[in-house]
Amino acid sequence: MARGISNAVIRRMPRYYRYLEDLIDSGVERISSSELSERMHVTASQIRQDLNNFGGFGQQGYGYNVKYLYDEIGKILGLDKRHKLIIIGAGHMGHALASYAKFGDFGFSTVALFDKDPDKIGEVINGAPVLPIEQLSDYIRDHNVDMAALTVPKEKAAGMADLVVRAGVKAIWNFANVDLKFEDKSVSVENVHLTDSLMRLSYSVISKEKTKE
Amino acid sequence: MARGISNAVIRRMPRYYRYLEDLIDSGVERISSSELSERMHVTASQIRQDLNNFGGFGQQGYGYNVKYLYDEIGKILGLDKRHKLIIIGAGHMGHALASYAKFGDFGFSTVALFDKDPDKIGEVINGAPVLPIEQLSDYIRDHNVDMAALTVPKEKAAGMADLVVRAGVKAIWNFANVDLKFEDKSVSVENVHLTDSLMRLSYSVISKEKTKE
Repeated sequence: MARGISNAVIRRMPRYYRYLEDLIDSGVERISSSELSERMHVTASQIRQDLNNFGGFGQQGYGYNVKYLYDEIGKILGLDKRHKLIIIGAGHMGHALASYAKFGDFGFSTVALFDKDPDKIGEVINGAPVLPIEQLSDYIRDHNVDMAALTVPKEKAAGMADLVVRAGVKAIWNFANVDLKFEDKSVSVENVHLTDSLMRLSYSVISKEKTKE
Repeated sequence: MARGISNAVIRRMPRYYRYLEDLIDSGVERISSSELSERMHVTASQIRQDLNNFGGFGQQGYGYNVKYLYDEIGKILGLDKRHKLIIIGAGHMGHALASYAKFGDFGFSTVALFDKDPDKIGEVINGAPVLPIEQLSDYIRDHNVDMAALTVPKEKAAGMADLVVRAGVKAIWNFANVDLKFEDKSVSVENVHLTDSLMRLSYSVISKEKTKE
């Protein structure tokens, strides 16, 4: 199951998951693909095609059972598994990630943060301690950590990523402003580029101004 | 200029800008499209096509002048203009955004943050004061603020977005976990969904585990 599915489909799955969660929160128990389509601003046929990649889930004339579809998409995304996440860098972004309770709901527990600043070590953020960076490799091995978020300067990111991967981390959530890539195909990476999104916003603003002229 | 250019091309522009900045930092003055292609893991013909949308910039047999191309892409993205950014919500994410000096280099100045928590009001983060949320509309009008970052709970996001748009903001950088859309086409929005990226990472990890089985 779930092999050979295009990246574009996978990229849309978290969005389905979010909309379904909102429907559950509003007490909606079932929904037709056309209603879902209207809410999500995608075509109903797109929705049917996307979900057919995973075996369908809909019933002709009934629509989708919201809770069932939500749970199934959660399983596809691996959210029924527990993930142990560490955060490298206990600055503002590290704090923000550690404090975001929502990640816990999705199966990601932040177990520790790491920093080199002695003033930060010993702090506890949302239940997770800030530990000295020297303990990083041992901690990963001893606690079977599978994911690491990098909130470090871009010059440090590649070296830090190599270090955590050598210690056993399988997934890197990279907030440093550089694209990380791994030769080792068993390592997964998501590069989050906040400046890219700000630049697209800037482009959108100026191109609208030009259209008005 | 720059009309009718596909979203896919625009989405790639910030990435070019980042790579060119790294080249400048490493003292590289010119680069061929094939060298740039190798670094960026996209084809040389893709690079030529992308840049031809804006009139080219390359010279046969010479390649690209790195600084010139960087500046031109900066202009395309509107980074030669100054943008006044406010941040709604002075929690950890608001702090992280206000503290990120890089945004300043790209022409975005965070001029103020807004919060309803009296304990936060009066704080100054990276030169920007935290002001009471009641002053929001007046501040936007008096200071010609053009962009607002929303770091508020998702239930608050749509109402807050409407409020700032009514006061004159033209661009919303939304970190709340909900897709914001505007009827008014003169408003630009970028929705940043950190949980979506974490879910894709989770999917990548479990699909690799399945392949191994």
